Amino acid sequence: MNYPANRSFSAISINAERLWSRHMEMARIGAIDGTGSCRLAMTAEDAEARELLASWCRQAGLDVHVDLAGNMFAVRPGSDPRRSPVASGSHLDTQPHGGRFDGISGVLAALEVIETLNDEGIETAAPLAVVNWTNEEGVRYAPGLLGSAWFAGLLDDEALARVKASDGTPFQQEARERGWLGDSADKFPLEAFLELHIEQGPILEREGLQVGIVTSVQGLRWLDVEVEGTDAHAGTTPLDQRQDALLASARMLVALNELGRRYGSTARVSVGRLRTATDGPSTIVGHASFVVDIRHPDPDTLERLSQECAAVCAATGKAFGCEVAVSERIAVPPTTFHDTCVTALESAAEERGYSYRRIASGALHDAANVAKVAPTAMIFVPCRDGISHNVKEYASPEDLAAGTNVLLHALLKLAQ
Amino acid sequence: MNYPANRSFSAISINAERLWSRHMEMARIGAIDGTGSCRLAMTAEDAEARELLASWCRQAGLDVHVDLAGNMFAVRPGSDPRRSPVASGSHLDTQPHGGRFDGISGVLAALEVIETLNDEGIETAAPLAVVNWTNEEGVRYAPGLLGSAWFAGLLDDEALARVKASDGTPFQQEARERGWLGDSADKFPLEAFLELHIEQGPILEREGLQVGIVTSVQGLRWLDVEVEGTDAHAGTTPLDQRQDALLASARMLVALNELGRRYGSTARVSVGRLRTATDGPSTIVGHASFVVDIRHPDPDTLERLSQECAAVCAATGKAFGCEVAVSERIAVPPTTFHDTCVTALESAAEERGYSYRRIASGALHDAANVAKVAPTAMIFVPCRDGISHNVKEYASPEDLAAGTNVLLHALLKLAQ
Repeated sequence: MNYPANRSFSAISINAERLWSRHMEMARIGAIDGTGSCRLAMTAEDAEARELLASWCRQAGLDVHVDLAGNMFAVRPGSDPRRSPVASGSHLDTQPHGGRFDGISGVLAALEVIETLNDEGIETAAPLAVVNWTNEEGVRYAPGLLGSAWFAGLLDDEALARVKASDGTPFQQEARERGWLGDSADKFPLEAFLELHIEQGPILEREGLQVGIVTSVQGLRWLDVEVEGTDAHAGTTPLDQRQDALLASARMLVALNELGRRYGSTARVSVGRLRTATDGPSTIVGHASFVVDIRHPDPDTLERLSQECAAVCAATGKAFGCEVAVSERIAVPPTTFHDTCVTALESAAEERGYSYRRIASGALHDAANVAKVAPTAMIFVPCRDGISHNVKEYASPEDLAAGTNVLLHALLKLAQ
Repeated sequence: MNYPANRSFSAISINAERLWSRHMEMARIGAIDGTGSCRLAMTAEDAEARELLASWCRQAGLDVHVDLAGNMFAVRPGSDPRRSPVASGSHLDTQPHGGRFDGISGVLAALEVIETLNDEGIETAAPLAVVNWTNEEGVRYAPGLLGSAWFAGLLDDEALARVKASDGTPFQQEARERGWLGDSADKFPLEAFLELHIEQGPILEREGLQVGIVTSVQGLRWLDVEVEGTDAHAGTTPLDQRQDALLASARMLVALNELGRRYGSTARVSVGRLRTATDGPSTIVGHASFVVDIRHPDPDTLERLSQECAAVCAATGKAFGCEVAVSERIAVPPTTFHDTCVTALESAAEERGYSYRRIASGALHDAANVAKVAPTAMIFVPCRDGISHNVKEYASPEDLAAGTNVLLHALLKLAQ
């Protein structure tokens, strides 16, 4: 039967047991450390995961297509031959010590939606597609989000052909040898794209919410800060006669955190890398460097916050008698997701009675690339303690089912 | 000829050109940044420096002995077989960005004294010895002053055998492979010990004096601080929901500096080593560690200051949601040098007509360890701008010669 605009399908639910058991079956490929997964892009483990997904898709009656970046698209026809597929998916590749949900849940949720529609005998007007984007994690091949970046035109065919693994193996050669290189340079046509993903942060769990409707992906800046002081002897040099680059950097880290907090709860200012030129406990550090990771969903605020971060470092360095040089290494603008997609997800969450909130994504995702070429949005599923990129990563069967039900009903709205 | 008590040798002087040229020749090993030296203990560079010293000593007719800690003793016999050697020396190892004088001058001055006696045909009653203490700087192996600490019994044979480099290599294995591990656990017998060293501080230069007669050494504590937070994603984790071990450590460094300043101008509180378990700009650091170097000439104040430092770290960690463990790695009480040695140095300076003052050492030296088992004192040579542990470190040929002449005549007095 068709999906009529005037008929309520809100009672239809996905099969939570099937969704969970597919997570567990997928997790057997490249399993590490009990609950972890290691399936780097285009390794034997990634190829095995792709083959398992393809076999499930074929069993569900889908046609599997592969493009020049190794992206997989499994298509279920719609009733309207003029329309392009409304798609959903994420990535099957993992971090070296990754978990069972980051990326995987988005691919399996998309497949579960289609199998539910098969079970219920529902046909959509637009075709539907399950997508597996290649090399999201960027562990073996730089840049990360490779498949979706090429798909969105951020990387052209020539640049894609030049991508090599850290050991020098060309990406496309490896993809061909694994059997996952398509022969058409055409981009798969998309009418819209929805990506379900674990939150990889603690907000939904802390607020006791089942679903996050992602309205945007934060913009990102990386500032390189170099602090030049004077090496000196810790025993002989009076405290008021030092140019201590590590102490000055420490004061900057404290000031940067205070500054970030003044910008409200959506701002992120972090320092995860700090290095010193010397490492002797009795030597006052003469040179230190660190990277400031700055994120905000609003482009103007991000710009202002970045400038203030640089100014805080310069002023603090001066107070400690140190020279400070600040340079920008990376600048990724924020992505705002498409109203139609966000609204479809929000309505679906409302109709199902799930607790939810709108949320900005702190992490980058394939959807941020796809948003450049098709209406796009994302669903976040809570994950325990906000932990991700870690073998302890966990999302409950109930939360995965809630998110996938929202995906189901939003896809029905978009494909009707 | 013997050195008769009733004959004046005050006209005898060391060879300043030879002393300087040996500094420059030694500085070619592990040379960095024009005027710097990098010869960490038991590296290939340290082994090469040891071999150069040994070859000079053998040319001067000395027998070279090595003990279980790799300490080198090059002995010139005396006329009285009942006496133990009167020794002098310092260390050849350097900081990672060290200079050409810290430690080196003390070893080369001792050798220069013996070569001068050879040139003059003077025999002393007691034997004389040139000493090179192992791993004074403590960069690769903790604790610093390793060789003299073992020599003074502050570290027993078992503890010495457990010493490992930061990369896990056992110290004695590396010393053996470099050819600088002795096979006797016996401590070299010492009748007295004098150490010449650059001041590593600004006092002599500011006061226009040629020589410092060191009467005492500040006490030192090293606290190991381990800060345990939680790894997290820099993009997704709100600033108020982090246990950021690097940020907490940064706040501790600022608080430790403020605390040190409240203890007045003789107190020293420094952090020269800070390490993080992760190094990714987008990963909140879950574990950081650092070493606090605390110094004060008064033992009770040093104890109180150390306790306050530990308390400040614990309280700050708590405020940042981190677990903090503080342990004492080194505790060296303040040292008062031996009257006989101090008087011998002072008389020598007087007789030679050098401008001098008595002075307390802000830096810790091997002599502070040796003082526990033999009468000991030190000579300070001015260094430019008080700069040390720095490639710009500089002592003039004239000042080095003055200090070495004081050493010569004090050794003659002690060994007569």
